[in-house]
Amino acid sequence: MTNDKQYMKLALENAKAMKGQTDPNPLVGAVIVNHNRIVGVGTHLKAGEPHAEIHALQMAGNNAKGATVYVTLEPCSHQGRTGPCARALVEAGIQRVVIATLDPNPLVAGTGVKILQDAGIEVEVGVLEEESISMNEVFNKFITQKLPFITMKAASTLDGKVATKTNHSKWITSEEAREDVHHLRNEHAAILVGIQTILHDNPALTTRIPNGRNPIRIVLDSNLRIPLDSQLIQDQQAHTMIFTKEEVDLKKKEKLESLGVEVVITSGKEQTDIQDVVNHLGNQQISSLLLEGGGNIHASFLAAGLVDKIVLYMAPKLSGGKDAPTFFEGTGIEWMEDSIDLINLSVDQIGSDFRFIGYPVFKELND
Amino acid sequence: MTNDKQYMKLALENAKAMKGQTDPNPLVGAVIVNHNRIVGVGTHLKAGEPHAEIHALQMAGNNAKGATVYVTLEPCSHQGRTGPCARALVEAGIQRVVIATLDPNPLVAGTGVKILQDAGIEVEVGVLEEESISMNEVFNKFITQKLPFITMKAASTLDGKVATKTNHSKWITSEEAREDVHHLRNEHAAILVGIQTILHDNPALTTRIPNGRNPIRIVLDSNLRIPLDSQLIQDQQAHTMIFTKEEVDLKKKEKLESLGVEVVITSGKEQTDIQDVVNHLGNQQISSLLLEGGGNIHASFLAAGLVDKIVLYMAPKLSGGKDAPTFFEGTGIEWMEDSIDLINLSVDQIGSDFRFIGYPVFKELND
Repeated sequence: MTNDKQYMKLALENAKAMKGQTDPNPLVGAVIVNHNRIVGVGTHLKAGEPHAEIHALQMAGNNAKGATVYVTLEPCSHQGRTGPCARALVEAGIQRVVIATLDPNPLVAGTGVKILQDAGIEVEVGVLEEESISMNEVFNKFITQKLPFITMKAASTLDGKVATKTNHSKWITSEEAREDVHHLRNEHAAILVGIQTILHDNPALTTRIPNGRNPIRIVLDSNLRIPLDSQLIQDQQAHTMIFTKEEVDLKKKEKLESLGVEVVITSGKEQTDIQDVVNHLGNQQISSLLLEGGGNIHASFLAAGLVDKIVLYMAPKLSGGKDAPTFFEGTGIEWMEDSIDLINLSVDQIGSDFRFIGYPVFKELND
Repeated sequence: MTNDKQYMKLALENAKAMKGQTDPNPLVGAVIVNHNRIVGVGTHLKAGEPHAEIHALQMAGNNAKGATVYVTLEPCSHQGRTGPCARALVEAGIQRVVIATLDPNPLVAGTGVKILQDAGIEVEVGVLEEESISMNEVFNKFITQKLPFITMKAASTLDGKVATKTNHSKWITSEEAREDVHHLRNEHAAILVGIQTILHDNPALTTRIPNGRNPIRIVLDSNLRIPLDSQLIQDQQAHTMIFTKEEVDLKKKEKLESLGVEVVITSGKEQTDIQDVVNHLGNQQISSLLLEGGGNIHASFLAAGLVDKIVLYMAPKLSGGKDAPTFFEGTGIEWMEDSIDLINLSVDQIGSDFRFIGYPVFKELND
C-alpha cells in the first residue's frame, strides 16, 4: 500500500466511525500530512457542524502550510457555516489535496477541485474511491435521487423460514445477530413494518444501543387497524408515522393524530401505495429506510424494485413446513431466470448465524 | 506442526484422494519414514485389494526395518487377503507405529494395537484423529450400525425456494455447483428421489464425472406410478430400485422386474415406509445414500431423524412466492425451539453459489 493509500485509509476509518450520526450529510474524513508526519485528522461529526477538513485544519494549525490533505470526499465549494472547505484549504496554504471521490451530485462534482486547482494546488482524485463511494451509499442515492436508500432486513432459518406454521419466531437467530439488528436500526433514519407485525408482536422498534438514535417508526396500515394502546403509539420513544390508503376511517385518523402520530394518506385504492410512501419519505428528508417487514411487505417492495440492499441473518437450523412463512412471499415468479440476482453478496458470521449482505438487481427495470 | 503431524497429514491426503472408490471399506493412508526420510507411501485403493500399510511396506522394501509407520486407521488384526496388517508390520521389523484413530468398531478396536505392542513395537494413537474420523464418517456409521450414512442435498435460492410457483427450477445454481453435485453422486453408493421428481424431470441420476461411478438409483413410488419409458428404467446405466408400499399393482411390479428393475415392497400401508427402505439398504451393504428429493421427501427423512449430513447449495438470488416450494416442506413444527440445529456448519463458495455443509441434531431422539 502506498503512503497515499495508507493516509486515505485512516481518513476513511475516521469517516466510517460516524456511521448513523451525520445524516442527511455524508460520512467524510480528512488527514493532513506534512513531511511524512500526520499533523491533523478530522471527521464530520453531525449535520450543521464543521466539515472534516475544517476540523483537521484546526488541529494542524500552522503545520497545514505546505502540507498534503487526504479527504474522502471532494471538498465543498458552497457557502456553509464555515465557508467553502475548498477555499479554507487554499487559505491555509495546503500544497496538495488527495481526494477519494468527487461529489456524487453530478451538478456539483468538480467545482471543489476547480477552486483548488485555480489556486495552484496539486489535486489527485480516485485514491480508494470504491471504499468511499460504498461507505456513503445512503447519501449518494439520497443526494442524487431525493429518495431514501432502502435496506431490507430479514432473519430466517437456513431453509428460508421466518416463523413456524403457527407464526412462532422467538428466537430464530442468536443474541449477537439480534444485537447487530439494533446497530442497523441506529444507523437508519426510519424503520418500516406492516400492520401484521404490530398486531402480532407489538414491537417498540427502537434501538437497544446505549445512546443510540431511534429511527422514525413507519407502519403500513391500509385499514388503520393499529390498536391505540400499541407500544409505538404510547411509548413516545420516537416519532411514529402511519401510511394508509386513500379512503380511511377519519375518526380513527384524528384519534391517532391526537396521540401525536402522523397519519399519511396515499393514493392507493385497495391498499397503501408504497411508491407514495417512499416519495413522501424523500420529501421529508428521510435518507435511509430499514424494511423489517414480513414476507409480504418484502415482496411488495422487491416487486416494485424499491430495495437497494439486503441484509439477511440466517440461523444454523432447519424449521420446515409447507405453510411456514418465508421472508419473500407474494405471488412469485413463473420462471427461475426471472429471479432477482444479488450482486456483491458477502457472507460473514455473527454469533452462530450467517449474515448475508448484497444488492438486488432488478431485471425488469433494466429492460 | 510436528513431524508426526506432517507425516500423518500426507497419509490422510493419500487416503482422502480415494473418496468414492473404497466402499464398503474405509479410506486409509499410510506413510513409512526411516531416519527422517520417507521410504514408502500407500493407500487403500479398492475393497478386495491390499490395505494401505501393505502397499507402503512393498514400496519401502528393506527400508521398513527400524522405520516408523504413520497410518490413518488402526492396522487390522483379522485375516484378510494379505494377512492381518498388524502382523505384516511386525514381520517387516517396524519400530514405531503412529495411528490417527482406532478401529471404529468397538468390538475390534485395540486388537491391532495389541498385536503391535505384544511384539515390542512402540504405538501412539490419536495424531490428527478428528480428521481421520471425519474422513470416514460414512464407514464409521455403516460399520457400527449397519445402516447407510444419509446425506441430504438441496439447491435453493437465498430465500429457500427450490423452484418457482410453476415448479420451474432450471437452473437455480451455477454450473460449478451442479458439477459439484456430480462429485457427490460419484461418492455415494446410492441416490434416492421421490416419484414426483421422476414424473416432473425424468432424470438419469447418473454422475457426469468422467469414469465416475453411477450410484444405485432409488425411487420412492408408493403407487408404482413410474412410467416404463423413464430414463431410469430404460438407460441401463446403473441399477434401479423402486420402493413401494404394502399393497401394489402386482402386474406393474412384474413388468418393472422384467425390465431389470428391483421392486421392494415395504410395510407402509398408505405410503412407502422410509425406515424399511433404510434398513433394506443397510442389509444390501449400501453404505451411503444421497437424498435428492424435493421438500416432502426431505421432510419425511428429517422428521424421522434419518439424515446424517446436509449439503445445501444456495444461489445468490431471490425468487419469492408464497406457493413456491422450499427444500424442507412437510407439516412443520409449532415452536421455533423445535427446529433442527445444524452443527459443524461450514460455508464456502462454489462458482457464484454458497455451499453449506452441516450435521443435523435431532432433539426428539435425544430425549
